[in-house]
Amino acid sequence: MTAHPRIVVVGTGAVGGYYGALLARAGREVCFLARSDHAELARSGLRVDSVNGDFVLATLSAHHAAETVAPCEIAIVALKTTSNAALPSILPRVLAPGGSVILLQNGLGEEEKVAELPGVGSVMAGLAFVCVSKVGPGHIRHFDYGAVRLAEYTRRGAAGITPALAAVGAELEAAGVPVTLEPDWLAARWRKLVWNLPYNGLSVVLRADTGALMASPPARALIAAMMREVAAASAAEHRAIPDAFIEQMLTMTDAMRPYLPSMRLDFDAGRELELAAMYAVPVRRARAAGAPMPRVEALLAELEFLVAARDEVRRSSNQVDC
Amino acid sequence: MTAHPRIVVVGTGAVGGYYGALLARAGREVCFLARSDHAELARSGLRVDSVNGDFVLATLSAHHAAETVAPCEIAIVALKTTSNAALPSILPRVLAPGGSVILLQNGLGEEEKVAELPGVGSVMAGLAFVCVSKVGPGHIRHFDYGAVRLAEYTRRGAAGITPALAAVGAELEAAGVPVTLEPDWLAARWRKLVWNLPYNGLSVVLRADTGALMASPPARALIAAMMREVAAASAAEHRAIPDAFIEQMLTMTDAMRPYLPSMRLDFDAGRELELAAMYAVPVRRARAAGAPMPRVEALLAELEFLVAARDEVRRSSNQVDC
Repeated sequence: MTAHPRIVVVGTGAVGGYYGALLARAGREVCFLARSDHAELARSGLRVDSVNGDFVLATLSAHHAAETVAPCEIAIVALKTTSNAALPSILPRVLAPGGSVILLQNGLGEEEKVAELPGVGSVMAGLAFVCVSKVGPGHIRHFDYGAVRLAEYTRRGAAGITPALAAVGAELEAAGVPVTLEPDWLAARWRKLVWNLPYNGLSVVLRADTGALMASPPARALIAAMMREVAAASAAEHRAIPDAFIEQMLTMTDAMRPYLPSMRLDFDAGRELELAAMYAVPVRRARAAGAPMPRVEALLAELEFLVAARDEVRRSSNQVDC
Repeated sequence: MTAHPRIVVVGTGAVGGYYGALLARAGREVCFLARSDHAELARSGLRVDSVNGDFVLATLSAHHAAETVAPCEIAIVALKTTSNAALPSILPRVLAPGGSVILLQNGLGEEEKVAELPGVGSVMAGLAFVCVSKVGPGHIRHFDYGAVRLAEYTRRGAAGITPALAAVGAELEAAGVPVTLEPDWLAARWRKLVWNLPYNGLSVVLRADTGALMASPPARALIAAMMREVAAASAAEHRAIPDAFIEQMLTMTDAMRPYLPSMRLDFDAGRELELAAMYAVPVRRARAAGAPMPRVEALLAELEFLVAARDEVRRSSNQVDC
């Protein structure tokens, strides 16, 4: 029997904590790299309140810095993309030479950068279809879903189902995660954007959860129109998305418990939004491919305005406090 | 010397009150039809605080209902378009047969309905470029600008500068209003929409005045993109709008004191928004002409969502109050 690969979770937020906890519970050796929760994780472990059954990971290997992590064969990056500038100083330290990096993140444009880092073997797009949030330090709540789609990145075309991809998929599956392996990372990324682009941004601009958006005929029509824009951009990059997929996304969202997407939580908490990876890069690629997404572009501009206004207010009130 | 035409102002809000007061001050016989301010107008007249000099119209002919208005040769309709359903019961009563109706309103699609009413002679599109608001009953504040563009409506093509149009223009000019007569009502309406469509809606969705919008590079770019959509729709209706006109609108807005458009004031006051005339009709015409306006369509959907959410909150809090 071959030894299982060592796994490091880079960024122990809701998503990283959830999947890392499942892997550790299944007996895998998992290191958790955490910025804010490090002390709490080391002291009390990780608590997961899940629709599939609550559990506690009482002891775990928590790390504050990459230096203390012994090299791992698999790195699951679950940072927000806005923190990806830290990856060049983290990944070469925590990854065994030739290891696999899974970017369990939203948006576009990050795999190509990670693929350039020294020592990286495979880079995989990881798409988490999960409703999960951090309710406190070392405390995660899992509301719904949980499947992961994995696809190996390659500079051109589709990588297909590689052995490295299958190996990572097998680890997650053994931990109880429903996994789908995909041959084409770009197709997988565009499909995820079909959901992400309308719901994330509109939840901020319209101050509404998915339930309120879907209950409104004009908002619903706008969401569907944005989805068609994303599908057209994807098709222009030779990754056609059928209308049936859009219908499926709408139906799935109808069936979901009303949900506030991560971008709205970030906005309300005063955190940086993933506007670059989730909006600006797709918008740029769509334009370059000759299929601009005007409604999505408008939404991006609105989000940029609202973030600047939010931060302006924060700066002003800080000044008053001093 | 011929007698001056009698003039009735239908809807004595900020715009109707302002222009009606100027005409009355210039010695014209003006009847003011007012719903909410009728008693105050009859008692104390109309006070105008204007950048061009304050004045008070101490006595005026205020009417609560069309029945008491003697027939007038000119009717200036300054209702919000959301109240235009009242025009079929008002205009035939207040207008002398063959008289002229000026729709001093925003948006598209209203002239054609008024032209069908019995007894109406000419219908004119009136476009007020004025920053004015009602600060209390019978009390108007005029902040900036004041010019009016007038164009006679005709079912097809352009009416040109008709005698009826020139006559109405002369009355306004004699009252000190800078007037431009335009040969083509549809061209004039589309040009006005170039400014109205981006600023009115975005001031609601982004909770910002014109100054904040123009100071934000993404909002400014979105505004320009929406303006280009409007210009393309206008061109598809054979009313080309040059790029220089868009530049001129942006430059003019830069030079304006920061301003909250009327739609934002309506939104905050819980009033109905002019979404049909200002957005839905232009959107429909643009689509029919083969030049859809996707960013404007997205903005309309957002506005519809926000109005419904606002009214939902009001209904809920009313229930609590009862």
